[in-house]
Amino acid sequence: MQISINANRCEPSPMRKFHPYAVAAEAAGKKIYHLNIGQPDLPTPQEYYEAMRTFDKKTLGYAESPGMPVLIHAVQNYYKQLGVSLDPNEIFITTGGSEALLLTCLSILDPYTEVIIPEPYYPNYTTFVHAAGGVIRALPTNPWEGYRYAQRERIESLITKNTRAILITNPGNPTGVVLSSEEMRMIADIAKEHDLFLICDEVYREFCYDDKFGVPTMAHFRDIDENLVIIDSVSKRFSACGARVGCVVTRNKELQAAILKFCQSRLSVATVDQIGAAALYNVDHSFFRASKEEYRRRRDTVIRKLREIPGVVVEEPMGAFYVMASLPVDDTDKFQYWLLDHFDDYGDTVMFAPGAPFYETPGKGINEVRIAYVLKQEDLERALDVLAKGIAVYQRHVMKI
Amino acid sequence: MQISINANRCEPSPMRKFHPYAVAAEAAGKKIYHLNIGQPDLPTPQEYYEAMRTFDKKTLGYAESPGMPVLIHAVQNYYKQLGVSLDPNEIFITTGGSEALLLTCLSILDPYTEVIIPEPYYPNYTTFVHAAGGVIRALPTNPWEGYRYAQRERIESLITKNTRAILITNPGNPTGVVLSSEEMRMIADIAKEHDLFLICDEVYREFCYDDKFGVPTMAHFRDIDENLVIIDSVSKRFSACGARVGCVVTRNKELQAAILKFCQSRLSVATVDQIGAAALYNVDHSFFRASKEEYRRRRDTVIRKLREIPGVVVEEPMGAFYVMASLPVDDTDKFQYWLLDHFDDYGDTVMFAPGAPFYETPGKGINEVRIAYVLKQEDLERALDVLAKGIAVYQRHVMKI
Repeated sequence: MQISINANRCEPSPMRKFHPYAVAAEAAGKKIYHLNIGQPDLPTPQEYYEAMRTFDKKTLGYAESPGMPVLIHAVQNYYKQLGVSLDPNEIFITTGGSEALLLTCLSILDPYTEVIIPEPYYPNYTTFVHAAGGVIRALPTNPWEGYRYAQRERIESLITKNTRAILITNPGNPTGVVLSSEEMRMIADIAKEHDLFLICDEVYREFCYDDKFGVPTMAHFRDIDENLVIIDSVSKRFSACGARVGCVVTRNKELQAAILKFCQSRLSVATVDQIGAAALYNVDHSFFRASKEEYRRRRDTVIRKLREIPGVVVEEPMGAFYVMASLPVDDTDKFQYWLLDHFDDYGDTVMFAPGAPFYETPGKGINEVRIAYVLKQEDLERALDVLAKGIAVYQRHVMKI
Repeated sequence: MQISINANRCEPSPMRKFHPYAVAAEAAGKKIYHLNIGQPDLPTPQEYYEAMRTFDKKTLGYAESPGMPVLIHAVQNYYKQLGVSLDPNEIFITTGGSEALLLTCLSILDPYTEVIIPEPYYPNYTTFVHAAGGVIRALPTNPWEGYRYAQRERIESLITKNTRAILITNPGNPTGVVLSSEEMRMIADIAKEHDLFLICDEVYREFCYDDKFGVPTMAHFRDIDENLVIIDSVSKRFSACGARVGCVVTRNKELQAAILKFCQSRLSVATVDQIGAAALYNVDHSFFRASKEEYRRRRDTVIRKLREIPGVVVEEPMGAFYVMASLPVDDTDKFQYWLLDHFDDYGDTVMFAPGAPFYETPGKGINEVRIAYVLKQEDLERALDVLAKGIAVYQRHVMKI
C-alpha cells in the first residue's frame, strides 16, 4: 500500500507541532496569549442562531447541491449592494472558503501545472494546489516593502506555458496588504492578456482600514468574466468560522460546469448552517462598521507596540486582521519553542505563527512571524509586552547578543 | 484557460437532466412519485435538534480539524457496541461520507492507478476516484445473479500492478447486496495478500434484513488493520443527510497522517452539526430496530409488486433501501423521459434512477433501474402500480410489442 504523491507533497499544519508544548506550558500553570489563531473573536450575530433554531422539518434532508436558493439569493443581494450583479447559477455554495479553493484547484489544475501566488501566503493553499497535482510558483515580496507584490514585471516573469492561474488574497493573509484599484486592474489585465484564471480570495473584503479601498472586489471588472474566480466565505465577515459556509463565484461557464460536478458528487453543504448563513447576510450593516472599527483599533495597538520593540521591521497593514513582521531573533520557530518551554513573564507567555511556513521559497521567513489581532485590546497590549520581554531575554540568554 | 483533465473525466449528476421535465410535468398538474431519491424519509431523532439548539458560545468558532472530541468519543462508543475497539486518532470526522471518500481517494490514488469496484455502484464514486486521477476497474455482476460479486477469481483477475484499492459498499447501493461473513473474510484476504487498500463504505450497516448478517463491519478483522479504510456517516443511520457528518476510520498510520493533512487544510467540519451528530449516537437502539422494520416492510412491498410485473428480473435485496431491477423496456433512460412527458395514470407518474450511470462498462444497465424505497407504504404501492401501468402502455405504444 502506498500514499499518493500529492498527499506526500502536502504539509501538516505548521502550528500542530507546538501543541504538546502549549499543553505542557498550560499544565505548568502558564497563561498563553494566542496571537497565532486567525479566527475572529467578535460575537457571531444572533441572527445565525435564531435562524438555525427555526428549522423544523421532521427529516433533515440534503440541500440542493449548488446551495440552497435562500442562501444563493442572500449572496446575490449582498453582491448587488457592492454594485456587482450576479446570476444565481454563478454562485456555488461550499463548505467554507476551503472547499471553494479545493474545488477550484481540482477544476483547473492538472499535474505539473502552475499557480502564481505572492509569498508569504496562507499555508493551506499548498494543500489545495498539491491535492490537484499543481505546483506553486511563489512571487517574492519583502518585509521592508510591506510585502507588496503588485508589479507587472515581477508577476509576468513567473508566467510559463504551464501557468494556469494567479491566486491572490485581497486583503491579504498573512500580510494585510490591500491592492489599490490600479493594482487590481493591472493584475486583471495580466490574467486577461495571458489567458489565466485569476483566483481572488476575498474573504477579508470588509476589513480595509483606509476608506479609499471601500469594500474591494475584482468582480467589478466585467472584461475578465472568463478569468475570474472569487473565493468567499461567511467565516471572517460574520465571525462565523464554525458555520463552514463559503462560496465560489464565477461567470466562466466551463468552470461552472466543472464545479457543479464536484458539488453534485458531495451532495450538499450542511442544511441548517446554510439557513443560518442566509440570515447573516441580512444583518444590519452597522455590524460591519463596528467590527472594522474594533479591528482597526487593535491593528493600531499592535503596530504601536511592535514599533516600540527595537529591531522589529513592520509596515502598517491596510486590511484583514493580521500583521507580518520581522523580529530581531535568529529563528522564530526556535523562539516559539523557547517561549513555551523556557520563558514566562509573571506566568504569561505568547504564541504567534512562525513565518517560514508562509513561504514556498526555502529559507525565507525564518525571522518573521504572523500576528493575528483577534484578542481584545488589553490582552493584545499584554501579549505584545510579553513578546517584547521574550525577545529581550531570548537575545540575551539564547542568542547571546 | 482550460478545465482540468480530471474534472472533464467526471460526469454531471445523472438525474439532473430529468429535472426540467419533472418541473414541466408538475406544472402540467401531474403528481410524481419519487423512487429515485436515496434519502431516508423517516424523522430525524429530536436529539439532533435539541443538542444543536443548546449551542450557546458567543462566537461560532472552528472545531478541531480531525473532529470534535465529543463526536469522536460518540463514534468510538458506537463502534465499541459493535465489538470494535478504536483509538480516537483512528477516527477522522468528515463533511459526510462524501468528504470521507474524497479525502481517501486523494490520499491513496495517483494518476492512472486503479480501484476495483463491483458494478453497478454509486455513481459519485466516479467523481471521487477521477478527482484524484484514478481509474475505476469495474467488477461485473448480473441481475440474474442478484448482483453478487464476491468471487475470488473474478476479483483477482482485475488486479494489476497499478491497483491501489478495492472499494465496496456493504450493504450495497444500488443493489442491496449484503456480504456473508465468509465473503467479507475472502475479500479481506485478497486485500491483504495483494497489499491493497480495502475501502468499505458501510453507511448502510444498520439496514440488513436477514438477522444472520447482524450489523456488519470489516473492522472486526484485525489482521487487515493496514489495509482497511471504513467510510461511515450519520446520514442513513439516523435519517440525517443534511447534517453532512461522516467519518473515515483507519488504523493505517501513514494514511492517518495523509488524511489529517487534508483535514487540517479545510480547518474543520461544521460545529453545530457535529454537536447534533454526537447526540444522535446516544439515541436509543430501538430507533434502529424501528427504522429497519419499516424499511423491511417497504422492501417486501416493492419486491412483491415488482414480481407482479411480467418480464421484471429482480432478486430480493438483503440490505440498504434500494433494489436494482431489470425492466422489460428497451431503454430505461428513454422510458423515464416518456413517463414524465407522455404518461400519467389518473394524473400520477413516477421517477426512478435509470441503470446505465451505475455502470462503468458502456452499454450495461440500459434495461435496469434503481428503486429507492424511502416512501411510505401506500405511496410505494401506488408508485409501483403506476410503474406497472407505465411499462404496459410504453410497451404497447412506444416499443410496439
